[in-house]
Amino acid sequence: MASPIPQTQSTLEQRETYSLIGANKVNGTNIYNPKGDHLGEVDEVMIDKLSGKVAYAVATFGGFLGLGQSRYALPWSVLSYDTGKSGYVVNLDADTLKKAPRYENEAELSDREWGTRLHDYYGIPPYWL
Amino acid sequence: MASPIPQTQSTLEQRETYSLIGANKVNGTNIYNPKGDHLGEVDEVMIDKLSGKVAYAVATFGGFLGLGQSRYALPWSVLSYDTGKSGYVVNLDADTLKKAPRYENEAELSDREWGTRLHDYYGIPPYWL
Repeated sequence: MASPIPQTQSTLEQRETYSLIGANKVNGTNIYNPKGDHLGEVDEVMIDKLSGKVAYAVATFGGFLGLGQSRYALPWSVLSYDTGKSGYVVNLDADTLKKAPRYENEAELSDREWGTRLHDYYGIPPYWL
Repeated sequence: MASPIPQTQSTLEQRETYSLIGANKVNGTNIYNPKGDHLGEVDEVMIDKLSGKVAYAVATFGGFLGLGQSRYALPWSVLSYDTGKSGYVVNLDADTLKKAPRYENEAELSDREWGTRLHDYYGIPPYWL
């Protein structure tokens, strides 16, 4: 899989900036903290049909955080892709992730009041603004 | 699957406006023209990792358009979801779909020049603007 052409920093940046990915391929992608501890995986990508925006990555935090198979919705913007790790990095401590607003069923993810609460919790503007 | 509560127009609108969907569930969704002819299916949803926007629905137009298993990238905004049909409707004639810019491999979808050409072809602004 070695590239015959040496990659310059600018082509790497460009590739990362512009690159599209099949939503399917995001599922199962590992999530790490900045120290490199494996936190969990992306289970599903939730998209907003109307605005065409990615709303949430639904993640499970199994091993390191010990949250079993519970599903957590992470605003897409808290995930940054790290090509070196081939995974997403979230710069949030375990306690913050553990205490984040939960949801009972998938329909609740569409609820804007719930969504506002989640984005407020993470201190970021909602994806629909 | 009958709802015990009669749906008013406003709740239907609200549901459609706000509803999120798992990207996985979009795959395989049927695509129709406004007359109701079945054109094909969504094969994959391509998302832009950085902007968090849905870029394209990669579609196959098998039967009606006779385009075999060729994959076409449709800007997300040309698809509108029709709850009655449980599928997407594209208001474009067969000839327009057939003559749309093609791509050789998935990496080409990330190319902004190609993307500009595709969006120009459909007369809509690129998803990244």
